[in-house]
Amino acid sequence: MTHKLILLRHGQSQWNLENRFTGWVDVDLSDLGRGEAANASKLIRGEGLQFDVAFTSVLKRAIRTLDIVLSGLEQDWIPVQKSWRLNERHYGALQGLDKAETAAKHGEEQVKIWRRSYDIPPPPMALDDPRHPTHDPRYAGLDRRVLPSAESLATTLDRVLPYWHDAIAPELKAGRTVLVVAHGNSLRALYKYLNNVPDDVILELNIPTGIPLLFELDDELEVLDYRYLGDPEAAKKAAEAVANQAKSFKS
Amino acid sequence: MTHKLILLRHGQSQWNLENRFTGWVDVDLSDLGRGEAANASKLIRGEGLQFDVAFTSVLKRAIRTLDIVLSGLEQDWIPVQKSWRLNERHYGALQGLDKAETAAKHGEEQVKIWRRSYDIPPPPMALDDPRHPTHDPRYAGLDRRVLPSAESLATTLDRVLPYWHDAIAPELKAGRTVLVVAHGNSLRALYKYLNNVPDDVILELNIPTGIPLLFELDDELEVLDYRYLGDPEAAKKAAEAVANQAKSFKS
Repeated sequence: MTHKLILLRHGQSQWNLENRFTGWVDVDLSDLGRGEAANASKLIRGEGLQFDVAFTSVLKRAIRTLDIVLSGLEQDWIPVQKSWRLNERHYGALQGLDKAETAAKHGEEQVKIWRRSYDIPPPPMALDDPRHPTHDPRYAGLDRRVLPSAESLATTLDRVLPYWHDAIAPELKAGRTVLVVAHGNSLRALYKYLNNVPDDVILELNIPTGIPLLFELDDELEVLDYRYLGDPEAAKKAAEAVANQAKSFKS
Repeated sequence: MTHKLILLRHGQSQWNLENRFTGWVDVDLSDLGRGEAANASKLIRGEGLQFDVAFTSVLKRAIRTLDIVLSGLEQDWIPVQKSWRLNERHYGALQGLDKAETAAKHGEEQVKIWRRSYDIPPPPMALDDPRHPTHDPRYAGLDRRVLPSAESLATTLDRVLPYWHDAIAPELKAGRTVLVVAHGNSLRALYKYLNNVPDDVILELNIPTGIPLLFELDDELEVLDYRYLGDPEAAKKAAEAVANQAKSFKS
């Protein structure tokens, strides 16, 4: 049988709009982002998909995107699992800074290195920073040694994949149709794993906000096919827009 | 220690507004209902409660009320469990009928009996009725012998309580603060159990829509105290309004 999985990046957030490093900061959707979520719902409806289960992060821009999608599909009733493992990459001490602030503080050259490397993390957030995950009640049940102070894409992948194997993949193998609503880098991690993308290529991949990416998988969860729903030109443009934002240090 | 539980009835639905028997029909909130949910969120915020887990039914008027409440509290990230066991009482063949239709079809006297009895169910919905739960994908995983064609308050209680014991009570006993967003009769069932209300008295109890009911429980989950949040007069008026609606066969 063919197993169906949709990956969806949350709609535009307030800080996407302001071009600031967001990471684990719990920023809300912008009005445009809410509209993107509603549009994603329509694209999925057009495909006639009935989900059996959905997964998302513990960050509200993803959760609220998921709520809008399920509401539009009249599939509010499906089980939803939320996990910190699907969170955006933690941007360490860069979180909250905009483009100009980052360049002024760390220099253009250093910012380029962080942007272009697979495994070099940004500078860590101080443990006594009140914004550090160890001070947030949503992570209170976790061993503090597992909570990041900063992540590279490589370490993001390391914490996303256990959740894929333990929570998401078993649902797909059991024949269920699965929706994952998450973030640019946690979805990059899943995309890289599913499509065996090399380390130096994955950084070029930009997953657009609000456009559902449908994977069809075989019984061993090998990829048979994948495509963005809706107009392929729209998906391409959206991905290019994300890439251009990235060029201005956007995350 | 004191264990905290909030019971919340969903905001007004479209069919509450139209005075029709709703039961398991998946009707959306009205605009007033969405406002009631937002107000419930404010009342809970005023109490300074941080929930650890929330439970709701598989009906969207409850799920969307919960989403509005958690969103207002910025507690979107807590785990949410949805279960058919928290659904509204199934009103059988009465579902979809309004007051005049019900009286015309079954007679005023018979309707009084259904309204006033604890254990006499309304006439069953036919198994081949496309609206019967056996035809709804959200119940596809359940043994069809467990799916009701009609429920009395007594049989509603019988299917709600296993969920209390297996899912909700263990969370409270583990020290977690719990939110349950459900329906007039599934909440009556929990209220009856917690407060040991006799069968013939519980029918007089009307839980108002959108006003959080806070229970404080001891380690054995015996009730230490309970009260509606906010203005006690507002809660009393809301409950009276529900009672008056009930007098006109409202459900």
